[in-house]
Amino acid sequence: MSKILVFGHQNPDSDAIGSSMAYAYLKRQLGVDAQAVALGNPNEETAFVLDYFGIQAPPVVKSAQAEGAKQVILTDHNEFQQSIADIREVEVVEVVDHHRVANFETANPLYMRLEPVGSASSIVYRLYKENGVAIPKEIAGVMLSGLISDTLLLKSPTTHASDPAVAEDLAKIAGVDLQEYGLAMLKAGTNLASKTAAQLVDIDAKTFELNGSQVRVAQVNTVDINEVLERQNEIEEAIKASQAANGYSDFVLMITDILNSNSEILALGNNTDKVEAAFNFTLKNNHAFLAGAVSRKKQVVPQLTESFNG
Amino acid sequence: MSKILVFGHQNPDSDAIGSSMAYAYLKRQLGVDAQAVALGNPNEETAFVLDYFGIQAPPVVKSAQAEGAKQVILTDHNEFQQSIADIREVEVVEVVDHHRVANFETANPLYMRLEPVGSASSIVYRLYKENGVAIPKEIAGVMLSGLISDTLLLKSPTTHASDPAVAEDLAKIAGVDLQEYGLAMLKAGTNLASKTAAQLVDIDAKTFELNGSQVRVAQVNTVDINEVLERQNEIEEAIKASQAANGYSDFVLMITDILNSNSEILALGNNTDKVEAAFNFTLKNNHAFLAGAVSRKKQVVPQLTESFNG
Repeated sequence: MSKILVFGHQNPDSDAIGSSMAYAYLKRQLGVDAQAVALGNPNEETAFVLDYFGIQAPPVVKSAQAEGAKQVILTDHNEFQQSIADIREVEVVEVVDHHRVANFETANPLYMRLEPVGSASSIVYRLYKENGVAIPKEIAGVMLSGLISDTLLLKSPTTHASDPAVAEDLAKIAGVDLQEYGLAMLKAGTNLASKTAAQLVDIDAKTFELNGSQVRVAQVNTVDINEVLERQNEIEEAIKASQAANGYSDFVLMITDILNSNSEILALGNNTDKVEAAFNFTLKNNHAFLAGAVSRKKQVVPQLTESFNG
Repeated sequence: MSKILVFGHQNPDSDAIGSSMAYAYLKRQLGVDAQAVALGNPNEETAFVLDYFGIQAPPVVKSAQAEGAKQVILTDHNEFQQSIADIREVEVVEVVDHHRVANFETANPLYMRLEPVGSASSIVYRLYKENGVAIPKEIAGVMLSGLISDTLLLKSPTTHASDPAVAEDLAKIAGVDLQEYGLAMLKAGTNLASKTAAQLVDIDAKTFELNGSQVRVAQVNTVDINEVLERQNEIEEAIKASQAANGYSDFVLMITDILNSNSEILALGNNTDKVEAAFNFTLKNNHAFLAGAVSRKKQVVPQLTESFNG
């Protein structure tokens, strides 16, 4: 049996990296020749995590077959367009994920463990418990980081009722204070000063087709919304360039304050009236405050969808 | 919260019925308003099971919405064309299955528990254990029957290393002798003489989309292959009628000898060359022997998939 590659999605975040490293380790303890790899370099937040726990980033690969692997395990994703380039040429033997299912199929039965919880790492944690395998300190650290990252320290509405206890246990094993470590880690991902405006509006951006309009919804995390708004002019230029190049009718940027769990919404495009109606606010100088909003998936996209369809 | 319907695939077999009844019971113990229903009447094997354990068949439904349900749980299947008619109009909140994944997608994250084991009932059994819920005698009986049915009494290559222990435990709770009960149950499903040819080719039939072709793969169990082949003419007429009515490009019928664990393959349609290539045999008078083959899932569908895509 040749080795099995374990990896998260493209443009990996801390949960993609953490869940894949942790799951590959678990599979090895269970006698499987599993190796964690990644589909991209760690972002700044994940680099902080790996450095904190003194572990190397998984090697970045472009093709499973080029690594001599015929079988793969996916964590934190299932949609093929988010996966490795040759995903259709290899066998997916397992999936551990917390997203909706789409654009995914196999020729054979497989092990698939999806739960609607805060992070893929939360599920991997449960699999350690079910298999009676002890969690090493640094593995607890990367899993904890995946959960903190995806739930913004358990504040996002995507947090599952079972997640806080998982976080507490992992923090204990990892030897960190949950709040202190969590904030430090999230802050490490908010170093926007080093990024050009064009990079900033593309760090974490997804396109949605809303009633025929191509709407780009991007999100950046920060500890100081005003610091980002000071760059509003160049950010707007970058947004307009992205709209012109990609045909987005609208561009909605969430500038999320990870300390206070609010977002400032910066919106440009043809349908700002619909953006205003979605959130029941008035844009001034193209932006407005959205109290309590941190989740694009739960607090922004559904509201935009309803407003655009209304 | 309105009730959640739990059901197996169309043309339900003992595992579809058993896993859905057992999982609905488990969910109710966990406080969920879940109700088992079925997408068809029990076959003769399943009727034997329900009669043996003195329980009623789940009500047959055609539409989830007509039953007032907005959410559903699928057991023993995931492909939408094998599911309830209005599957795309309701929310799939859970899947417990042991098949490949295809033609399945959701708008939201869900609970999905797939394992490459002998039956969906094997997984439901594990979920009882994980949740610490006691298994009632008749629920053990229907789960055991699902496992026996799908693995031909643990002889099929789809049998997982963990399945024999599951069968032993369930037999103990159900109060039956595994071998004696298993054989009696399987034989109850081989009474083909009472069926019209049209019924026979539809007892246990599933449709697969292979490289754009609608391929129907049916299976009947028997203790005498020749007895079935004596009816070849009327069976072929029934197959042609089914193809014409439903647009199947191909129809593959497995006539499975449950005592000796072999199958005769009867194939009609536009791509019999691909069927021959799949199994490396030559059809004579439309049929050929496939030694050791008893599993549609492991020994027929993957081979057809590869051949049709080749």
